[in-house]
Amino acid sequence: MATLGDIGVAATINILTAIIFLLAFAILRIQPFNDRVYFPKWYLKGIRSSPLHSGALVSKFVNVNLGSYLRFLNWMPAALKMPEPELIDHAGLDSAVYLRIYLIGLKIFVPIALLAWSILVPVNWTSEGLQLAKLRNVTSSDIDKLSISNIERGSDRFWTHLVMAYAFTFWTCYVLMKEYEKVAAMRLAFLQNEQRRPDQFTVLVRNVPADPDESISECVEHFFLVNHPDHYLTHQVVYNANDLAALVEQKKSTQNWLDYYQLKYMRNQEQRPKIKTGFLGLWGKNVDAIDHYIAEIEKLNEQISEERKKVKKDDSSIMPAAFVSFKTRWGAAVCAQTQQSSDPTEWLTEWAPEAREVFWSNLAIPYVSLTVRRLIMHIAFFFLTFFFMIPIAFVQSLASIEGIEKHAPFLKSLVEKDLVKSFIQGFLPGIVLKLFLIFLPSILMVMSKFEGFVSLSSLERRAASRYYMFNLVNVFLGSIIAGSAFEQLDSFLKQSANQIPRTVGVAIPIKATFFITYIMVDGWAGVAGEILRLKPLIFFHIKNFFLVKTEKDREEAMNPGQINYHATEPRIQLYFLLGLVYAPVTPVLLPFIIVFFALAYLVFRHQIINVYNQEYESGARFWPDVHGRIISALIISQVLLMGLLSTKGAAQSTPFLLVLPILTFFFHRFCKGRYEPAFLRHPLKDAMVKDTLEKAREPNFNLKPYLQKAYIHPVFRDDHYEDSRFDDMSSYCVEDSDDECVTVPTKRQSRLNTPAASHVSRGSSRSPPSKC
Amino acid sequence: MATLGDIGVAATINILTAIIFLLAFAILRIQPFNDRVYFPKWYLKGIRSSPLHSGALVSKFVNVNLGSYLRFLNWMPAALKMPEPELIDHAGLDSAVYLRIYLIGLKIFVPIALLAWSILVPVNWTSEGLQLAKLRNVTSSDIDKLSISNIERGSDRFWTHLVMAYAFTFWTCYVLMKEYEKVAAMRLAFLQNEQRRPDQFTVLVRNVPADPDESISECVEHFFLVNHPDHYLTHQVVYNANDLAALVEQKKSTQNWLDYYQLKYMRNQEQRPKIKTGFLGLWGKNVDAIDHYIAEIEKLNEQISEERKKVKKDDSSIMPAAFVSFKTRWGAAVCAQTQQSSDPTEWLTEWAPEAREVFWSNLAIPYVSLTVRRLIMHIAFFFLTFFFMIPIAFVQSLASIEGIEKHAPFLKSLVEKDLVKSFIQGFLPGIVLKLFLIFLPSILMVMSKFEGFVSLSSLERRAASRYYMFNLVNVFLGSIIAGSAFEQLDSFLKQSANQIPRTVGVAIPIKATFFITYIMVDGWAGVAGEILRLKPLIFFHIKNFFLVKTEKDREEAMNPGQINYHATEPRIQLYFLLGLVYAPVTPVLLPFIIVFFALAYLVFRHQIINVYNQEYESGARFWPDVHGRIISALIISQVLLMGLLSTKGAAQSTPFLLVLPILTFFFHRFCKGRYEPAFLRHPLKDAMVKDTLEKAREPNFNLKPYLQKAYIHPVFRDDHYEDSRFDDMSSYCVEDSDDECVTVPTKRQSRLNTPAASHVSRGSSRSPPSKC
Repeated sequence: MATLGDIGVAATINILTAIIFLLAFAILRIQPFNDRVYFPKWYLKGIRSSPLHSGALVSKFVNVNLGSYLRFLNWMPAALKMPEPELIDHAGLDSAVYLRIYLIGLKIFVPIALLAWSILVPVNWTSEGLQLAKLRNVTSSDIDKLSISNIERGSDRFWTHLVMAYAFTFWTCYVLMKEYEKVAAMRLAFLQNEQRRPDQFTVLVRNVPADPDESISECVEHFFLVNHPDHYLTHQVVYNANDLAALVEQKKSTQNWLDYYQLKYMRNQEQRPKIKTGFLGLWGKNVDAIDHYIAEIEKLNEQISEERKKVKKDDSSIMPAAFVSFKTRWGAAVCAQTQQSSDPTEWLTEWAPEAREVFWSNLAIPYVSLTVRRLIMHIAFFFLTFFFMIPIAFVQSLASIEGIEKHAPFLKSLVEKDLVKSFIQGFLPGIVLKLFLIFLPSILMVMSKFEGFVSLSSLERRAASRYYMFNLVNVFLGSIIAGSAFEQLDSFLKQSANQIPRTVGVAIPIKATFFITYIMVDGWAGVAGEILRLKPLIFFHIKNFFLVKTEKDREEAMNPGQINYHATEPRIQLYFLLGLVYAPVTPVLLPFIIVFFALAYLVFRHQIINVYNQEYESGARFWPDVHGRIISALIISQVLLMGLLSTKGAAQSTPFLLVLPILTFFFHRFCKGRYEPAFLRHPLKDAMVKDTLEKAREPNFNLKPYLQKAYIHPVFRDDHYEDSRFDDMSSYCVEDSDDECVTVPTKRQSRLNTPAASHVSRGSSRSPPSKC
Repeated sequence: MATLGDIGVAATINILTAIIFLLAFAILRIQPFNDRVYFPKWYLKGIRSSPLHSGALVSKFVNVNLGSYLRFLNWMPAALKMPEPELIDHAGLDSAVYLRIYLIGLKIFVPIALLAWSILVPVNWTSEGLQLAKLRNVTSSDIDKLSISNIERGSDRFWTHLVMAYAFTFWTCYVLMKEYEKVAAMRLAFLQNEQRRPDQFTVLVRNVPADPDESISECVEHFFLVNHPDHYLTHQVVYNANDLAALVEQKKSTQNWLDYYQLKYMRNQEQRPKIKTGFLGLWGKNVDAIDHYIAEIEKLNEQISEERKKVKKDDSSIMPAAFVSFKTRWGAAVCAQTQQSSDPTEWLTEWAPEAREVFWSNLAIPYVSLTVRRLIMHIAFFFLTFFFMIPIAFVQSLASIEGIEKHAPFLKSLVEKDLVKSFIQGFLPGIVLKLFLIFLPSILMVMSKFEGFVSLSSLERRAASRYYMFNLVNVFLGSIIAGSAFEQLDSFLKQSANQIPRTVGVAIPIKATFFITYIMVDGWAGVAGEILRLKPLIFFHIKNFFLVKTEKDREEAMNPGQINYHATEPRIQLYFLLGLVYAPVTPVLLPFIIVFFALAYLVFRHQIINVYNQEYESGARFWPDVHGRIISALIISQVLLMGLLSTKGAAQSTPFLLVLPILTFFFHRFCKGRYEPAFLRHPLKDAMVKDTLEKAREPNFNLKPYLQKAYIHPVFRDDHYEDSRFDDMSSYCVEDSDDECVTVPTKRQSRLNTPAASHVSRGSSRSPPSKC
């Protein structure tokens, strides 16, 4: 069991790591040649221009102003300075609300920590349970003196913990409700203030039934002309352009190689670069690289234009789905919320996602297939969760002093040294767990894609909830019970229902030190590492050196990244879970969690302002999930406290504690009914208000051309080829700003420069965030 | 343990009882003076007129045609003769679909029984598990020789049961899916063929926000004029007329007494009847009864008209709810399915129930109160379920031979007699259980009312699902585990998750004989008793003698009753559960269940054709519940079989059996997605078709006056007083037929004579069906 000293060592290491990261960041960010890595958001918004264009040669690359080194922490107040409304304008509602998750953490845990330290810690500290236990040869660490372990069996002092559990629950619920209310209001205000956007008028129709006499397009037009006669405006069918997208992607990669060799040749004009045409350039005929890639691109261009012709001509490449646009937002709101046909598997309508967050390749999946895919993915996730344990269990047994001594006896003398021992106990278990979790979000994302969701936000939400489940079982329970998930499942099945909380509950105080080190590794050092952006930094300089020819190339090389909700949110939830579980048990853990939330809030606020560029905007659509998961953490904490107390001879408190989860569950039901519709449905009143306002403001606006080409598969949009069918297809974003900037100063110009979501359309999983 | 002989006695008793009931019915029904008891439906439809009006004096009361006594069973083919479409016209879709529940029972269990008897029974019979067990002094009955108990531990023969479980599951799911498909199609066709009805154009709006400047009515009008400008037609506010309804009810009862004394006086004109004015007429001043009641009615009339004036003038008696009517069905469908305001607790819209099934007093409950009420009722139901056990456990211990010998030793010599012993063991446990369950549906109905549902069909559905839960815990599990529900809960909490199915599973074969007798008592004799209509028969003759003065009085005295879905459907579900659980375990039980389903189908078909008069028509809205409960019975049966087999040393079959509940669950999810929307939502296409057809057929129909008064509180409708505000308020039903009969021959004339649902509006629970 780790002692206070171990924790001190771990804390020192992690604080040092964090400080090194922050220092490195402070130095790197003020170097002009890193400017695009640390401030890409401003470049994309067009506000900041390259520092390379002005000043002396040296100062173009290295910051020689020594004064700025002294103010190396000044990014912190700067990150906090921007007020929330401006932040919403700057980075979108998703980002602003995402930050509120950290704020909620502070709002919940700061008062809880104050209360716990002023009441629970003295109560625990003045007890003598551990001294009594020591007589029976039970060892304990100093931290246990501050925890519930120090209370004697059957003591009346447990009533304090019971009352505190009530206080914590009520405070958490209060904060959650206020926050839900606030976020719902923010979402509604955001949607209400938004500029005209095609998705406001558009509904995605799936499972258009096949008709032998009509094409899909005619069928859609007739159906909506008949059933929404006063509101239907136009529609766009969806092409199955997956092959075309693959070709375009291939061409892009070939173009990269061509750029690389051309740059190489420019720098060293004596020798034309050569490559081998065989596998990975290892063997085969030796040819001139530039000529080879030019020829390749020629060939691909031909293939692409052929494929494009095929897609256009072949009716079978039209998928049974369409984007149907209406004359008013009211008409679209009606169509999105109602059932069209008496067969609920046909003419499925839903509000269209933003054009840039459509996941194109899933649009054609038929109804039955969706059910089957869901079943398969549920089962696959079950196995993933419960058989992923093999490596974790192995590594965790390895990463203990005993494990190392057993498996690597030659290290015995080393690990017996105090400092190394503390390092292994305090640092290693956290870091190995962390390493395992890096690749998981991408796997879960692929699973969500297979399941058939049609928008990026829904894909991310599903992946996030799976990731949370995984974390709960494998990280939280897995670390507490210290066994593989499958062993847990097996033992849970064999235990009685009221025994499970006891088994877990008893282990909780024991594992406090483990989680403290976990928080420091993952929470402190990890977050500080996030701000350094080491991976994008390296990649940017590599690309900048090898590939960048034009300003546009440089913009593409920036890779600002984004929040990656599906990978980061479930991890934050783990801190909520730990905080709520440990609040009544081992309040010592709370300050560590508060530091995490504060630091993460600061870092992510800075990143959101200066770095991240969101691929899409869902209007905080993820909030009900966040809320639900905090509620579930609260219920888990209550049940585990019940289990713990019942083993502590305080069984008389069980009925009082039993009330808490029931009340919490009904609080959840209430919040769900009261606030969730704001995230799911589209009130007609709001649609009508916007329609009316807009009609008054621009009575002669012609909506049809504006909507006609809004939902175009990105491969058609990216293309530079002339085409009779797609030639006037500029991205809708550009149109948007063209139309809107004149009348109202647009607050959302950032869209203008959003990198096209083309890689998404190919079904590839997005690269994990640099934090991972 | 009951032997084959015991079951034989029970069967004889029950078959005799059933035959006596059927014979009594056969004789009673052909007596002309019972005609209104056994054929009220035809009177209400106006097709049959009183047999009292013609023929000789004797034959007016007693059937003297001996030939008709010989054909005493001819109601059976007659009940089967009417084809389903005609039945739907005659009795409504609810009744026709309700009968299909029995049919499903036959469709599921006849093939299962054939398969089980041809494969499972021989496999069980030829085993020797019980003979081996007998060597260890385990007693067993003959029935056990046919059941799974006869298979030796660890025998390979269990694979037969496993394969059969798969076969049963697939067959049940197949039947369920076909049936769901059929019922959904029937519902859609029914809704599509319906006449114009006000509820097709009307939406119920609840939680209208209070506005200091506008009345509720103005507020509603403005809101819908703004947000549904092309579709809004008119609206009706809802008055809080609960006090008025109570007064009207009181007047009706006083009127009954007046009628009674007037009739008494007419028959015996020598003496004017006297009553005492005190408590229950037991003491107080002696006054002339007729004068007293005439004065009472005068007084009530005054109070009523005062209350009516108060309701009309006082704005506080207008509830924050309204029935909003639209110009088209399309407009109503849109409004019912969309969210109106961004605050999801305001302007809640739902499709308006038929006017006669509105539960008026619940219309004004605000949103938060609904959540709290739901919580309270969930908790109350939990306690009802788990503390109702005290009487059941007591009586069940009493009703055993041992219990009687212990508690009433003087009966020992009597109960030791073979016949009496068999009677006690075979008959009593079933009947005591039955008695307990009589009053439960009414309690559950009151609970649903408190919970705040606004239509009778939703009240009944909620009460039904609670009743099912209750039956599952207290009748099924309670009889199997033979302990109070609370004891079960306690032991389940203390048992491990995989131990529970074992505990229950092991007890299943043992309890087969108990359930066989239960089926005979409740299923056979009970259903045969239903056709006799003993309670309505007696009440009709009492009322006819004491109260009836006019033809209208006689019509009211008929009390045709109705299906009482909330009390009967959960009981049918118990048979599905028993059948599915015992099919692979003790197939002997299946024929008993088949007899039940066949008999019940026959009886209820007869009753629906000749007797019942449904208060409302929900269009088979209850089917998803029926389907879901059969699915849950199927899953329970699979889990219990798994538990049973694992105790039989056939644990290797567990993984194979584990697949079944998962598949079944996903089958349920599939069906839910595929068919349930037909019962919940209102496809716009269908609405548009009906609108278009109707416009073509009656281009000049004026909808507004037709809808203006459709949703009037029944107390205003029943009233005969002149009133400036309500004077032209004839019931919408009459209007309906007036308007419709001219243009299209109405198939739904039965509405014309539907007894006004006035007693419902007062929140009283409806009387339990005569079967109870």
